[in-house]
Amino acid sequence: MDTTLRIEQALEAAVARAEVPGAPAKLAAALRYAVFPGGARIRPRLCLAVAGACGDDDPALADAAATAIELLHCASLVHDDLPCFDNAETRRGKLSVHRAFDEPLAVLAGDALIVMAFEGLAREGALSPHRLSGLLLTISRSVGMPFGIVAGQGWESEPDAVLERYQRAKTGSLFVAATVAGATAAGVDPGPWRILGECLGEAYQVADDIRDVAADPEELGKPRGQDAALGRPSVVAELGLAGAVARLEGLVGEAVESIPPCPGAAALRELVLLQVKRLVPKQLARSAA
Amino acid sequence: MDTTLRIEQALEAAVARAEVPGAPAKLAAALRYAVFPGGARIRPRLCLAVAGACGDDDPALADAAATAIELLHCASLVHDDLPCFDNAETRRGKLSVHRAFDEPLAVLAGDALIVMAFEGLAREGALSPHRLSGLLLTISRSVGMPFGIVAGQGWESEPDAVLERYQRAKTGSLFVAATVAGATAAGVDPGPWRILGECLGEAYQVADDIRDVAADPEELGKPRGQDAALGRPSVVAELGLAGAVARLEGLVGEAVESIPPCPGAAALRELVLLQVKRLVPKQLARSAA
Repeated sequence: MDTTLRIEQALEAAVARAEVPGAPAKLAAALRYAVFPGGARIRPRLCLAVAGACGDDDPALADAAATAIELLHCASLVHDDLPCFDNAETRRGKLSVHRAFDEPLAVLAGDALIVMAFEGLAREGALSPHRLSGLLLTISRSVGMPFGIVAGQGWESEPDAVLERYQRAKTGSLFVAATVAGATAAGVDPGPWRILGECLGEAYQVADDIRDVAADPEELGKPRGQDAALGRPSVVAELGLAGAVARLEGLVGEAVESIPPCPGAAALRELVLLQVKRLVPKQLARSAA
Repeated sequence: MDTTLRIEQALEAAVARAEVPGAPAKLAAALRYAVFPGGARIRPRLCLAVAGACGDDDPALADAAATAIELLHCASLVHDDLPCFDNAETRRGKLSVHRAFDEPLAVLAGDALIVMAFEGLAREGALSPHRLSGLLLTISRSVGMPFGIVAGQGWESEPDAVLERYQRAKTGSLFVAATVAGATAAGVDPGPWRILGECLGEAYQVADDIRDVAADPEELGKPRGQDAALGRPSVVAELGLAGAVARLEGLVGEAVESIPPCPGAAALRELVLLQVKRLVPKQLARSAA
């Protein structure tokens, strides 16, 4: 099955579970709004790509892992956009969840998406109990305290945030979860797959910082210049635009080199390069890809 | 080991995992503040009581279940207190988390507590993989959409909320999780333990509604009259105070009757009656207990 279709179907099935008679309808609608239409779905794509490269002998479990990771990503976007954080009006080219619904429903939608991610893993993991605990640990650590997404967002409340630590927690952790969970879901030792996630996570963050200053607002789907406006740490602020592009090139090279020997290595390398190309503003694409 | 000590130690171990070098310190402090000192810890107490009545052959797993349930309860309190919901100044006799820290840290603390609950289950469940999936499903369903705590809170955004459905999701679900998870953690068929959770959850909600109009504010640890002030559905509004007390008595009787035959049944019955007595304002205690 086409990967895009596979991801969207798995997400659809997860979201539909909340849309049953007896459920609060507005919250169910806010959940759907937060998940569809998606962005590039880069994290679940990465998870399934690694599972595929590792043999994908339990596709339903890989789907559950990819879905959990994307739902947790969506949850973090909904909460990050709240008035007390970024106060973002728009996201993915439409109103943010708290603007389209309201603040209570945005808080609850984020909470529900977090729970839904773990519930889906539990459901599929019932048939693969010996892989479930590892998957859960990998994914929960990547979003919680002390080193996951929530911790990364928590660094914005600290006076002396270290850029690298902040970005590793806020963005890198879920990329690491994607590669490690992809291998774990396929029953393969996930250790060697960690570096790929680390490099791609950092590359993605650098690309995000670059887009924040250099992309068309329309291409970006949200206002430009948010990092500077909010005084947030940024690689561009630290290294300049050219330095940030060079850093991105180095990380992508390192990522591609790190792919462990496996039947799907060549295809995975191609996919990684293709995905990275999409992340960079068109006018910078030639130098970065 | 004394149950209170057992619960506090398990919660302490969970919270301490977030307090490591390299973690954002304020968020770690907000987590601790949200969990300690606790309230009556009635849900983890119920979970361990049922596990004990069922033989408690895997105490570490029962601890993880009880801890997860209490952390999820704490998370719901932190988010419920936010300005966009109850805007509560105080909780458990001290400032609410968003007042003692700030709103971003309160949102993140709630998120982190949710994740921490599932991570702890994953960690202990690694040694009992065949009980892990059932525990996770029970607990995640009790907090998520469509019928868990988050759904219950979501009913506050609906124009035509049904009181019973609202309260069953918002409060009852976690009591059901406590009894079902207690049995599951001990390797016992959890089906017959469901009614106990349902009755106690409803009893607790009725007691809460009674306390909201009849308790000392000091005994309550939060402002009185919140339900009426916020136009929230309440059993007292529906049945009057005497009707609510009668309803509470009926539910407690049903709960005690429902306890399945097991070696610890008598002790559990006593514990249930003792806990209920604590929930009722002193001046009403004689009639309700």
